[in-house]
Amino acid sequence: MDIHITLHGRRDLTGQIYAQLRAGIVEGRLAANARLPSTRDLATQLGVSRKTTLDVFDRLIAEGFLRTRAGDGTFVADGLARLPGANAQPVSARARAAGIWRKLPERMTMPMPLAEEALDCDFKGGVTDKTLFPYDAWCRALNHALRTQARAGGGVASYRDPAGEQELRLGISRYLAFSRAVACNWQDVVVTQGAQQALDLLARVVVQPGDVVAVEEPGYPPARALFAALGAGVAHVPVDEEGIVVGKLPRNTRLVYVTPSHQFPLGMPMSLERRVELLEWAARRGAVIVEDDYDGEFRFEGRPVESLRSLDRAGLVAYVGTFSKTLFPDLRIGYVVPPATLREPLWHAKQVTDWHGCMLTQTALGAFMLDGAYAKHLRRMHKTYAARRAVLIERLCGELAPWFEPLPATAGIHLVARLDASCDEARVVAAACEASVGLYGIRPLYAGRALMQGMLFGYGGTSVDAIERGMTRLAALMPALRS
Amino acid sequence: MDIHITLHGRRDLTGQIYAQLRAGIVEGRLAANARLPSTRDLATQLGVSRKTTLDVFDRLIAEGFLRTRAGDGTFVADGLARLPGANAQPVSARARAAGIWRKLPERMTMPMPLAEEALDCDFKGGVTDKTLFPYDAWCRALNHALRTQARAGGGVASYRDPAGEQELRLGISRYLAFSRAVACNWQDVVVTQGAQQALDLLARVVVQPGDVVAVEEPGYPPARALFAALGAGVAHVPVDEEGIVVGKLPRNTRLVYVTPSHQFPLGMPMSLERRVELLEWAARRGAVIVEDDYDGEFRFEGRPVESLRSLDRAGLVAYVGTFSKTLFPDLRIGYVVPPATLREPLWHAKQVTDWHGCMLTQTALGAFMLDGAYAKHLRRMHKTYAARRAVLIERLCGELAPWFEPLPATAGIHLVARLDASCDEARVVAAACEASVGLYGIRPLYAGRALMQGMLFGYGGTSVDAIERGMTRLAALMPALRS
Repeated sequence: MDIHITLHGRRDLTGQIYAQLRAGIVEGRLAANARLPSTRDLATQLGVSRKTTLDVFDRLIAEGFLRTRAGDGTFVADGLARLPGANAQPVSARARAAGIWRKLPERMTMPMPLAEEALDCDFKGGVTDKTLFPYDAWCRALNHALRTQARAGGGVASYRDPAGEQELRLGISRYLAFSRAVACNWQDVVVTQGAQQALDLLARVVVQPGDVVAVEEPGYPPARALFAALGAGVAHVPVDEEGIVVGKLPRNTRLVYVTPSHQFPLGMPMSLERRVELLEWAARRGAVIVEDDYDGEFRFEGRPVESLRSLDRAGLVAYVGTFSKTLFPDLRIGYVVPPATLREPLWHAKQVTDWHGCMLTQTALGAFMLDGAYAKHLRRMHKTYAARRAVLIERLCGELAPWFEPLPATAGIHLVARLDASCDEARVVAAACEASVGLYGIRPLYAGRALMQGMLFGYGGTSVDAIERGMTRLAALMPALRS
Repeated sequence: MDIHITLHGRRDLTGQIYAQLRAGIVEGRLAANARLPSTRDLATQLGVSRKTTLDVFDRLIAEGFLRTRAGDGTFVADGLARLPGANAQPVSARARAAGIWRKLPERMTMPMPLAEEALDCDFKGGVTDKTLFPYDAWCRALNHALRTQARAGGGVASYRDPAGEQELRLGISRYLAFSRAVACNWQDVVVTQGAQQALDLLARVVVQPGDVVAVEEPGYPPARALFAALGAGVAHVPVDEEGIVVGKLPRNTRLVYVTPSHQFPLGMPMSLERRVELLEWAARRGAVIVEDDYDGEFRFEGRPVESLRSLDRAGLVAYVGTFSKTLFPDLRIGYVVPPATLREPLWHAKQVTDWHGCMLTQTALGAFMLDGAYAKHLRRMHKTYAARRAVLIERLCGELAPWFEPLPATAGIHLVARLDASCDEARVVAAACEASVGLYGIRPLYAGRALMQGMLFGYGGTSVDAIERGMTRLAALMPALRS
């Protein structure tokens, strides 16, 4: 039997010989029942010690790749020829044939920048400004968390409460009671991996494949991608200036996903009348309402309309919040305050899905909230965002008024401006990109036909100076874009 | 109209009056179309300034709770009486009636300690020793991650790659290639929220409700709870001394979940012959194999049998690993190396489920791996666990031999010892608990009838001294426990 083994250098000779013999057997180049040279001959052939070849053979025999017959030598084990080869039909081809791919989620079509390089002024939504984040306070909180982690459990590290770190849940419940009129105890809060996981867990306990989930149109693509991926039939229900049109909800809807504080993307709050109508409808139909209060923290005009949840005495509303907009998205911490009746199922769903989240950041964030650093940061960002928003609206209503009309919105870190029908959304986006201005059309936020043209202006990651520059450039290029 | 408003102190008078009026309206005590006193009268009645009551009325009018008729006064809005009351049928009762609760996961019956207070010696499985964790190196890695986080993205915080931090994926791929013979690039690795989420994502892209998922019996309860929660039909397939009995796999199995390196809980590795048989079977049936290599890092006898994945040339095996056993479980970082054909679906499933994991710990862990701290920690823990395991086996095979027989296991941070039929598992657990020794019977790890009695001895969180003490106490109480 001819064995080709090539040694590279003199390090780990046993490992090198083992790996090559094993590969030869697994890949079928060394046939079943083939006799191997003696360990002595192989050692001579390769110029290694006999102990080396003996070790290799011992290991391959122990693992079952080789077998010995007393007084007769060492042979390649049979049976290995049955190992499926690289030409076996791979999983996906079979999977596709079996139709299982219909669970594959649609692409999450959030608008993405056209340009690869950094833009001079980028109005991307859903991002935040790191330069204003209080890293010193955050670092202190993290070091506190690290000390807590080292001490906790009496030296034994174990799994934790799926609902999350108690201090963080306490911080969230106090914050919600104070600023969002969501009356809850810390026990009511389930911490999640961003708001996205809150939606996932809620859908898992409420929605069966085939059930109808209603979302707003236009709306938040990651939510509709998620519900579709879970096998739900997604109904895209139009919004008007008061919010989702309750009369157009399919009768058999199991779950309604809404953004009452600041409709995503258009920005208007849901009117009180519409809120009452929605709650009444949900009680009648036995549907669950998911209120995604994704950026309700930042309000700039009037007093906040409080959460939908605060009107709910019947246990219909699951309130979902996130730190992605107030701190940063890659923190990946969100939360849900479910109706009392869904609390235990959600707890189990969280446990079974991923057990619990990253405890280090949860402990740090709990400390960050309870010692007041979070509230301080919110106040600071509120002022910053108010200034950016004011400049944006001033410019849109000034020199850009012939082309843009900001929609009424009192909150958040983005606004939508309607684009005049004489221009084409995609053409404006492309021209702006050429001028190093990142613009984002709202067309991808419609699941069906877009009922209007518009641009989403995010100001979470853009300074006042950059906004001024961007608006000036936009004003310069718009006249040429009338079609 | 009679309005009862009680002021507590003189702080935030506007807020106090607002909240009580609003609550009165929402809860129906102030009826629709009821006329309110004038702001002047109300101010006098409450002893507050008229500006205060004007502010309250303005806000309630703006929000739609009150309305004005010119020259006629202020009234409670109608329509609010339609708000579902607390006596409306809550979500869960309807949900139960609709049968949706069959998606509710079964309890994850991992053995739990009977005692609330700390035990003198606790053989709990799945925990690790924090006192030996290199917090200094970890702290350095975290501070590096914090600096990276502050700098990354040019000051703008945004969502990241769902598959995880590139450095961590690189660290994992190198580690797997070197120590588990899993040949992969960093692009093949998807970082998950512990191994549990890896199972969840795999099941989501491979399994439809109603599909059959095969698990080992006895086996890992959180895995079977997860598959059941996703609507799969879970088949409990017995293991013998070579691993899962392939001949007993249902013909229509879509996914097989196995622990080939160190069967959970019994401990034996899957034989090479059985591995070949399983791969061959999966190729024939178009099934996906999930290899959970949950504690394959720590091996104490012989050379490791390499991963099942290393035998797979046909793209049938998804390899799942975790840092829960090598570092600590509340870190919540695991990973999956899927067959190439499942890579894109998994990426989407991760994105749609929770977007991505906690980037701070991922960046820190990447640095911790790439600078060698992880390998150093593994070597140290290997020695520590080897010493604990040796003491445990010595005592079990010594004075405890009349009652216990350790099952052959070459790896991991726990072992199972068969309990003599003359004793009752539950009685031994209870008696040990009385003596402040935490023991865990294997009965809960069977989905069906237990085929043997035994104890799972975890030594991840127990010192050599504690093991000695625990064994001495156990030896003292066993003679009285023969039935």
